[in-house]
Amino acid sequence: MIQFQRELNRLRKQLLELGGEVEDNVRDAMKALQRRDAVLAAEVATRERETDEREVDIEEECLKLLALYQPVAADLRYIIGVLKINEDLERVGDLSRHIAERTSAIVGLPERPLPADLTSMASKVTSMLGRSLEAFVNLQPEMARDVRAADEKVDELNRRNCAGLLAAIKEHPEAADVLLNVMHISRHLERIADHATNIAEDLIYMAQGEIVRHKPV
Amino acid sequence: MIQFQRELNRLRKQLLELGGEVEDNVRDAMKALQRRDAVLAAEVATRERETDEREVDIEEECLKLLALYQPVAADLRYIIGVLKINEDLERVGDLSRHIAERTSAIVGLPERPLPADLTSMASKVTSMLGRSLEAFVNLQPEMARDVRAADEKVDELNRRNCAGLLAAIKEHPEAADVLLNVMHISRHLERIADHATNIAEDLIYMAQGEIVRHKPV
Repeated sequence: MIQFQRELNRLRKQLLELGGEVEDNVRDAMKALQRRDAVLAAEVATRERETDEREVDIEEECLKLLALYQPVAADLRYIIGVLKINEDLERVGDLSRHIAERTSAIVGLPERPLPADLTSMASKVTSMLGRSLEAFVNLQPEMARDVRAADEKVDELNRRNCAGLLAAIKEHPEAADVLLNVMHISRHLERIADHATNIAEDLIYMAQGEIVRHKPV
Repeated sequence: MIQFQRELNRLRKQLLELGGEVEDNVRDAMKALQRRDAVLAAEVATRERETDEREVDIEEECLKLLALYQPVAADLRYIIGVLKINEDLERVGDLSRHIAERTSAIVGLPERPLPADLTSMASKVTSMLGRSLEAFVNLQPEMARDVRAADEKVDELNRRNCAGLLAAIKEHPEAADVLLNVMHISRHLERIADHATNIAEDLIYMAQGEIVRHKPV
């Protein structure tokens, strides 16, 4: 079983690498938006394809380990956890690409000040993502519970952004394109926070056997 | 192993029941929108909580079967497939709730004609969902490949809806609330089609061992 533990470690490393890549993609997508940097936005979209390949590799690795070692109890829950977190990370990758695509569209439109909350929202969301992965790696359910709590704040920021942007659209319909793109970015960030929350909830389940999904925080 | 086969059958039934419920929720959410029926919209939102419970049950069942019978090869791929499809169905359930919530908001606003494409998009999407589940149950990869192809048409309908709604917002900014809600519903439908496509791709993998995810259709 030493071999199996070695493979589990390797799997964890692979997942963390994917997590790191995905975090970078989200950060760079937001950096591209703030700097109106079309080149960086295009780069994020390209990089996302590598993320997809990694996700497929990790899934195949999980299936291989399940078939080869037929783990039970904690090891089984761990591999299933990796499978689920892997999917969440892949979707976060998709969302960073969507943000980058919206940014590319915005760069071609007349400049407008962005709502202040978008920046603070982005930093909250990337922090949630980082902490959910850290909680997973170090098996820290308490940290995972913090991530769940942070999600409510992000939802609130998104609601505020959307309300502000809707009011701005009514007042400046000629700028509806850019304002709508920004609204979509706010919603994409909110969904990234949802995926970080999924990761946190999977960890709580793995560590404590409690399914907290769909339960109040 | 007769016991195991019996359990697999039961699992398939559970998944199909969840699929049927989720399909009904999407259909009823769209019916509520077309009829401006706030009561039905609220009902869809309530029903979605039952869907969440079913999803948790199915996941627990999968973990139980993996631990108890330690299946390999096709059976292992099948259970992992059920785990993944289960998650997709749960998210489709979430999206039907989002549509119902947008509908509740729309019902309180002045009536406007809805874009024609939304209805045809909704019927395409529910058909994709139904066919992806049927393909899964009957292990029909060819049908799954049709679902993948249909997804491109839905993406195109969504793009057309969004462009039309953006133009309408510019022309009638006073109706921005309702038009934006309709735009979100169009995007929710598009995401439901994405989940149906995920289900189809999981089936192709299960049946043919080919990972078509992230590959061109």
